[in-house]
Amino acid sequence: MSTITTEQMRFWSPEVRELEPYVPGEQPKIQNLLKLNTNENPYPPSPKVVEAVQAVLANSADVLRLYPDPDASALKQAIAKQQHVDVSHVFVGNGSDEVLAHIFKAFFVQELPILYPDITYSFYPVYSQFFGVKTKVLPLNDDFEIVVDDYKQPNGGIIITNPNAPTSIALGLSAIEEVLQANPDSVVVIDEAYVDFGAESAVALVEKYDNLVVCQTTSKSRSLAGLRVGFAIAQPHLIAALEAVKNSFNSYPIDRFAIAAAVASFEDQEYFEAQNEKVIASREKLVAQLTELGFKVLPSSANFIFASLSSKDAAELAAELRERGIIVRYFNKPRINQFLRITIGTDEQNQRLVDTLKNDILA
Amino acid sequence: MSTITTEQMRFWSPEVRELEPYVPGEQPKIQNLLKLNTNENPYPPSPKVVEAVQAVLANSADVLRLYPDPDASALKQAIAKQQHVDVSHVFVGNGSDEVLAHIFKAFFVQELPILYPDITYSFYPVYSQFFGVKTKVLPLNDDFEIVVDDYKQPNGGIIITNPNAPTSIALGLSAIEEVLQANPDSVVVIDEAYVDFGAESAVALVEKYDNLVVCQTTSKSRSLAGLRVGFAIAQPHLIAALEAVKNSFNSYPIDRFAIAAAVASFEDQEYFEAQNEKVIASREKLVAQLTELGFKVLPSSANFIFASLSSKDAAELAAELRERGIIVRYFNKPRINQFLRITIGTDEQNQRLVDTLKNDILA
Repeated sequence: MSTITTEQMRFWSPEVRELEPYVPGEQPKIQNLLKLNTNENPYPPSPKVVEAVQAVLANSADVLRLYPDPDASALKQAIAKQQHVDVSHVFVGNGSDEVLAHIFKAFFVQELPILYPDITYSFYPVYSQFFGVKTKVLPLNDDFEIVVDDYKQPNGGIIITNPNAPTSIALGLSAIEEVLQANPDSVVVIDEAYVDFGAESAVALVEKYDNLVVCQTTSKSRSLAGLRVGFAIAQPHLIAALEAVKNSFNSYPIDRFAIAAAVASFEDQEYFEAQNEKVIASREKLVAQLTELGFKVLPSSANFIFASLSSKDAAELAAELRERGIIVRYFNKPRINQFLRITIGTDEQNQRLVDTLKNDILA
Repeated sequence: MSTITTEQMRFWSPEVRELEPYVPGEQPKIQNLLKLNTNENPYPPSPKVVEAVQAVLANSADVLRLYPDPDASALKQAIAKQQHVDVSHVFVGNGSDEVLAHIFKAFFVQELPILYPDITYSFYPVYSQFFGVKTKVLPLNDDFEIVVDDYKQPNGGIIITNPNAPTSIALGLSAIEEVLQANPDSVVVIDEAYVDFGAESAVALVEKYDNLVVCQTTSKSRSLAGLRVGFAIAQPHLIAALEAVKNSFNSYPIDRFAIAAAVASFEDQEYFEAQNEKVIASREKLVAQLTELGFKVLPSSANFIFASLSSKDAAELAAELRERGIIVRYFNKPRINQFLRITIGTDEQNQRLVDTLKNDILA
């Protein structure tokens, strides 16, 4: 944006001139790259997803020209069934990033600041700036864990990623209940993008707490990052706020293909469970191998690990991996600039990473 | 939302408690209904669209699990080529509703109010409330035309739908140039959702005016309402503001199916032109028939008409059509509560409307 003159800037809304947008993980268009940088699933989605889209296409002359259901009722029903909640407890959006944006607007524009950890999803400060949400950032402890007692101070809302990213560390449900109970007048959002890889979901607490919003995505555990479908689970008085925001922004955020494909994914529980087990098994194997190579790996409940090597600078290591066709995510930020976030691939892909480290970079 | 208690409302952001969301046209799930209420195209999209989605599916194991290109470069390139502009002049979003939302945030959050007509797309006041945009609403004249001189007063931006909705009346490019020239320090947005059905596009003016943003959609003339792809054309210093907003809200708003399908549509210029000609021909025929039945029909450059009948209350007429399986759009609003907005269907569908009126309701 360096080419925009001050004169041209007069057209921008003043508050937009100050924005510092989110920078997503790189999506390189190079062939044969091993992409372990954006926490995508190494496996394809359920074959039923493809069948569902085929069915839309078979009927395409009649349906593509028509708006989708603005309420995406079929999708809400499929999610409700899979999550064992009533459909009135479900909100859907164009990826969990859009769901989170609506959450910030719906609940967090308050007099008091919202609370979140210093090391967490880097979109939270961006949403906060975008919607004028005040923030108070609370440091994780030296083991990169959330200090539950810190979340018992006056606030305008709380958002916790669980398992946290990029640390991969999960918080137990009892700790989450402690936060919920200490904040009866604030909305507590648990962002569970990675929950299906081994953490406990707070969806089980939704009936009990009228201040809880749980957010999930189909991009990771359902292998549908290409589709853009996220959702939130909460009691109806909170869902209503999200619907009011959504319908003041975009009536039809989820297209017909995405609705059909996501419904098929939620209906195939068996595939979902089998696939998650495979990723978890691969993770455990990779953690063991990296530990053997001298890495310190934080305890992961996600489809990625957060690892550091005392003998080698992390930025350098990332660059050397990249030269060898392997991309991992490096954050040049305080406290975590000696860590790499590495997505769990297939066993073969993980082995390529281990071999490259063992036989080449660290040899 | 009547079931939400004041106590539960404490969780909502105060500004969200006041929102009055947009209400989209009804999407009934009843069979055999003739749906002339949401300005969808009666014809399917280009067959190339289906082929493009088949190609994504053929490769689905490899691609659905991966995030789409956050920049949707392939789509921007296809639009740039079809619109004869450089790719740096193109912004894309999840339907033109999302593009418009980003436009309001990017340009219209100013000290002065934005200007728009009293009768126009009813989402504009909703976006304004959502983003805290001040507004000054200017009445159309008695013939439902925009009074260009009204748009020469101090303002924080201008948005004009062209052709206007629900009036269907187009504004000429010379009038638009007059507005652009009178407002060198404001962004002027021309919302061209219906432009391909007979109005002149202001895209031709983009190189000449550094304050012009043109917004279009694939939902009407490209028969892709089911897909959710909209776009804006403007000079790069304005596109940059839209990208800053978009990347502060949702990095990946357009999924892989939508990108592939929309690209195929923009590449099939021949189908596009032939289809638009068919809709225009059907419109002229329908206007003649309704005029013969005593309707007053405003001059339409869109894929819908705005019509009134002095002998019959419009709300009643809409209700009687509905009883007979034909849905049109009725707005219970000052000045236009004796009009019906009727989408142009196929010749057969339009004939069913005419016959129902002639042989039944008005017989």
